[in-house]
Amino acid sequence: MNTFGRNFRCTTFGESHGLAVGAVVDGCPPGIPLTEADIQPYLDRRRPGKSPLESGRQEADRVEILSGVFEGRTTGAPIALVVRNRDVRSEDYDALRDVFRPGHADYTWQEKYGLRDHRGGGRSSGRETLARVAAGAVAVRCLEPCGIVIRGRVIEVHGAAEPEAMEAEIRAARDAGDSVGGIVEVTATGCPAGLGDPVFGKFDAAIAGAMMGIGAVKGVEIGEGFGAARLFGSEMNDPITETGFASNHAGGILGGISTGQEIVVRIAVKPTPSIRKAQRTVDLAGEEREISVEGRHDPCIAPRVVPVAECMLAIVILDALLEQAKYRGFGATGHGVGA
Amino acid sequence: MNTFGRNFRCTTFGESHGLAVGAVVDGCPPGIPLTEADIQPYLDRRRPGKSPLESGRQEADRVEILSGVFEGRTTGAPIALVVRNRDVRSEDYDALRDVFRPGHADYTWQEKYGLRDHRGGGRSSGRETLARVAAGAVAVRCLEPCGIVIRGRVIEVHGAAEPEAMEAEIRAARDAGDSVGGIVEVTATGCPAGLGDPVFGKFDAAIAGAMMGIGAVKGVEIGEGFGAARLFGSEMNDPITETGFASNHAGGILGGISTGQEIVVRIAVKPTPSIRKAQRTVDLAGEEREISVEGRHDPCIAPRVVPVAECMLAIVILDALLEQAKYRGFGATGHGVGA
Amino acid sequence: MNTFGRNFRCTTFGESHGLAVGAVVDGCPPGIPLTEADIQPYLDRRRPGKSPLESGRQEADRVEILSGVFEGRTTGAPIALVVRNRDVRSEDYDALRDVFRPGHADYTWQEKYGLRDHRGGGRSSGRETLARVAAGAVAVRCLEPCGIVIRGRVIEVHGAAEPEAMEAEIRAARDAGDSVGGIVEVTATGCPAGLGDPVFGKFDAAIAGAMMGIGAVKGVEIGEGFGAARLFGSEMNDPITETGFASNHAGGILGGISTGQEIVVRIAVKPTPSIRKAQRTVDLAGEEREISVEGRHDPCIAPRVVPVAECMLAIVILDALLEQAKYRGFGATGHGVGA
Amino acid sequence: MNTFGRNFRCTTFGESHGLAVGAVVDGCPPGIPLTEADIQPYLDRRRPGKSPLESGRQEADRVEILSGVFEGRTTGAPIALVVRNRDVRSEDYDALRDVFRPGHADYTWQEKYGLRDHRGGGRSSGRETLARVAAGAVAVRCLEPCGIVIRGRVIEVHGAAEPEAMEAEIRAARDAGDSVGGIVEVTATGCPAGLGDPVFGKFDAAIAGAMMGIGAVKGVEIGEGFGAARLFGSEMNDPITETGFASNHAGGILGGISTGQEIVVRIAVKPTPSIRKAQRTVDLAGEEREISVEGRHDPCIAPRVVPVAECMLAIVILDALLEQAKYRGFGATGHGVGA
Repeated sequence: MNTFGRNFRCTTFGESHGLAVGAVVDGCPPGIPLTEADIQPYLDRRRPGKSPLESGRQEADRVEILSGVFEGRTTGAPIALVVRNRDVRSEDYDALRDVFRPGHADYTWQEKYGLRDHRGGGRSSGRETLARVAAGAVAVRCLEPCGIVIRGRVIEVHGAAEPEAMEAEIRAARDAGDSVGGIVEVTATGCPAGLGDPVFGKFDAAIAGAMMGIGAVKGVEIGEGFGAARLFGSEMNDPITETGFASNHAGGILGGISTGQEIVVRIAVKPTPSIRKAQRTVDLAGEEREISVEGRHDPCIAPRVVPVAECMLAIVILDALLEQAKYRGFGATGHGVGA
Repeated sequence: MNTFGRNFRCTTFGESHGLAVGAVVDGCPPGIPLTEADIQPYLDRRRPGKSPLESGRQEADRVEILSGVFEGRTTGAPIALVVRNRDVRSEDYDALRDVFRPGHADYTWQEKYGLRDHRGGGRSSGRETLARVAAGAVAVRCLEPCGIVIRGRVIEVHGAAEPEAMEAEIRAARDAGDSVGGIVEVTATGCPAGLGDPVFGKFDAAIAGAMMGIGAVKGVEIGEGFGAARLFGSEMNDPITETGFASNHAGGILGGISTGQEIVVRIAVKPTPSIRKAQRTVDLAGEEREISVEGRHDPCIAPRVVPVAECMLAIVILDALLEQAKYRGFGATGHGVGA
Repeated sequence: MNTFGRNFRCTTFGESHGLAVGAVVDGCPPGIPLTEADIQPYLDRRRPGKSPLESGRQEADRVEILSGVFEGRTTGAPIALVVRNRDVRSEDYDALRDVFRPGHADYTWQEKYGLRDHRGGGRSSGRETLARVAAGAVAVRCLEPCGIVIRGRVIEVHGAAEPEAMEAEIRAARDAGDSVGGIVEVTATGCPAGLGDPVFGKFDAAIAGAMMGIGAVKGVEIGEGFGAARLFGSEMNDPITETGFASNHAGGILGGISTGQEIVVRIAVKPTPSIRKAQRTVDLAGEEREISVEGRHDPCIAPRVVPVAECMLAIVILDALLEQAKYRGFGATGHGVGA
Repeated sequence: MNTFGRNFRCTTFGESHGLAVGAVVDGCPPGIPLTEADIQPYLDRRRPGKSPLESGRQEADRVEILSGVFEGRTTGAPIALVVRNRDVRSEDYDALRDVFRPGHADYTWQEKYGLRDHRGGGRSSGRETLARVAAGAVAVRCLEPCGIVIRGRVIEVHGAAEPEAMEAEIRAARDAGDSVGGIVEVTATGCPAGLGDPVFGKFDAAIAGAMMGIGAVKGVEIGEGFGAARLFGSEMNDPITETGFASNHAGGILGGISTGQEIVVRIAVKPTPSIRKAQRTVDLAGEEREISVEGRHDPCIAPRVVPVAECMLAIVILDALLEQAKYRGFGATGHGVGA
């Protein structure tokens, strides 16, 4: 399943060291102004090699729109977005051809498919997220006229919550040939009430699936999240007043449907599995091996997850907006948001 | 979206105070032995009124199989499962007709649909989970010959982790007219490696969506979960040895695909929103009101979430097994689990 | 796949001689007035035993709405519709337990599932269409306020096109222990322009799939249909004038999208495969057998296909209307029907 | 909906006069040998400009595989196929910018989307089928080791059934500035019994939807098709003998499931709507206009529909094979093809 979304559908393709990575966006509303310049800034934010704390891979990551836009506006036809790979150094990975890197998908993909493209992680590489970011940037563009704004940031790295302390943790890990995890928070303001579908298409269920589907994510929470397990009902419930909700412990979602408040999501990002430190593993023949993963890797992947998480949230929100719009003016007496 | 699953598809219906609650299971493999007696124990575990710490609603919850089974075996045709509602006291809810209960879906459903069945929460009631449990019990039955066993338990209530302490927390909350949250852990043993689909159909993404889609759940984590954010890569990565993985920080999933180890999932359950304590809210006209939710409610919903979470996990696993089986013997040289 | 539709989704269940036949309708717009009395007339039209030319099976076919309607209006929750089977004479079918009836699904279901419910055709019985008709009647109810009217009729039986001649053909076939085929035409007026989705979700593709999915249908055509193969472009093309299209050879669909004209569909219905005349077949052991299908069968199924075809068309149209409504008022400059 | 298929999923993109046309194939089994050379012959068969009776557009139509293949074999990852457009003469279409060509999608797309790419028909151009053919060629490659062979041919043009007569009809139409329709037959041999899903996913329903989704197709029939409406049951039913079915009036499908016999499908192709002869139409402002469609057009599109229909049938069959394989060896006693 390389397609995400029900109404705004994004299909991605491409491997880390293949010819290109890209996405086809189907279901984009027609008439939306769109050029490569709307998408490129998101790819630039995601791009590696911007600081000494990030992977040294140098990719221009220039996106090309192959279809679906005519005279500067979307037409309703599928929008194909392609980014050619350039700085491919597959020989870095030759040593890994027959070895399973711990913490990576190498072993599981081999089990699943019986063969795999080992170069740079192939399809399971973080580079795949480039395609989601391109597609998500289109969703962000569609949400703009609706007044919906999405923002993400790293709120914790290896237990540290202050910017300087976070950077120090990353630096220390890098110098030790190790890596560290972190927590990313993503929020959305401007979402109308009524988004999300009971019972299995809950808004929070869709968000959780989207976020857990980002590589390296091991946990997702909404509003109080795991903290809710330690609260009384009288603390957790958000009182409703004439002017709206008096608090937002729910994180903007009740019963799987948006309340109109800010959507608040946090995700746990595991430490980058690629580390220089020696690790035990086996090869294809089942023989034990010691491995030290050289190459160009981020010692903490959390900062680069930020635009990916933003874009996934944008897709989920746009998808829910389109779903909800179905009942508008349909003939029913009451049917939803602002009806 | 009242349908869950791609291959083993479960569609649920029914309201808390309507005539019946039920499910239609489509895509169940043919030839599986199945009777009502395979399903009933799961409904019994989920049923309210079993202890003084639970809702006093008395429902026999007898399931009837209307179709899809012939001479004791599934036929491949859809299996309709129906449970008639009996102990319906809708008049308990008359006072709530025009008032939004804090922490409930009342407000958001009204916003979404423009009207709602207020009796006992209608479709957004926890009683809907009965249908999932019935469908999930069918999935559990299908997994048995595969040697896959799923188990759930409450591991924390309001911060307490010992059974006695948990019970004390629930009792204290009930006596105070309040409620408490908790954490449920669900595990699956016997899952083969290779389940789950990159990129958007990751096994952990499917689990996260399934779990977050259970009412009252505000967080989901796999393996180390949020704890992974505080680890070094050298701590998080599971070494691979000749005899298998040396640890299971990953919770049985790498790169979105099962490793063959135990699947470990934890979910955060918020405190029951229905509490006797007075709360501020508004009515349909927007006027402020004070509300004290009477009726029959569990002071902690976590114990009753356990069979629901088990059943959702069973559906996700069976669904992935069926998906993976597609490539079996298809003509490719290597294609998956046990190939 | 026992679910049909993308937005208005209908899942059916039940076997001819099981406990019940029914449907769950998901995605019905909220606020639509609906009672059993809206559905029953469609079931009555489809019901057997109304004339000596039809199957003698006597079923009251009373539908019960189990969920999704509150105080006479749909709520947006799934609508479960159940019809209990009553006049079940399974012993009529004992002789058929191990024999494959020619022209029926007996052999293919056995091949597919490895076992089957042989009683009255089980799930492959024409009785399954009862569930579609129930669901389709809900769709018809939703289309009413939109001014969309669907009508079907038999236009040919065994080559005869006049009512009296058609009846004579049916009578003659019945008396000979044989059966005859026919052609049904279904039309829809009031459909707005703009329905249907390029490229694979074309309106005519959806109609063709829906119609060919009715048992016994062997052909589908739109507008001129097969006749178009014998025309010049200058004859087939419908000129456009200031007051609209000057003709309707296209049958209301161009490029897979509705033109706003009448939708015209014709389907070929094969002769009822159950005939008293002796036929050659084999049994489960592969031994040759002669079979004469006794029991209660229509000598021409075309008249009873009419309400089924109407209901399938209603579902397709409603589904497309909901799909099209997604882009309404979304922020794009132009986006569809009546925008 | 620019995606087709449930297991073998093909998403197409691109406009006639845009930068490129292409497809992303998701769900292809891993380990299948595949290179551009497997796909190119299908594109060549579909390509225009091969004879004086076809459109004069000159396109090399060279396909490039961007992803999903590693060392000559499919990996299970999505396969992106791209064909760059080259011989684009958009200025030919300037005169058509504000005019609706009769028989084309111009009017309906404008109604649906509120704007359109008018150049060469944009997304509604027959050039889109190039992407389906590329994807279908991959399906054909997968079917090869299964022994399934698909063949299509034109069996009628404007009523003529002999090759010379068909060519004469096309030539005469071209010389008159007109066009003619025809009938295409597609067959598949080697399909196992048991393919297709009751009730709504019938094999014939899937085929009908696939075929009617090809532009210019106005009718689809299986086996006897419309002829079945004129037969007796005793003529239509295929007797079953110890050595198999004694005839194939059913066209290889009974009860929506394949019988193991040859699959026989016929489709009606309307005359090419683009003709030089003057026609009445209106422009965007609703003013009446006379139009003569110049440019490069086939006077009969049926021959070029042949590879498209073959490829769509290949996708439907492969999709059904993958679906059916799900139940293989799953634990049920009997479950399908060759089980």
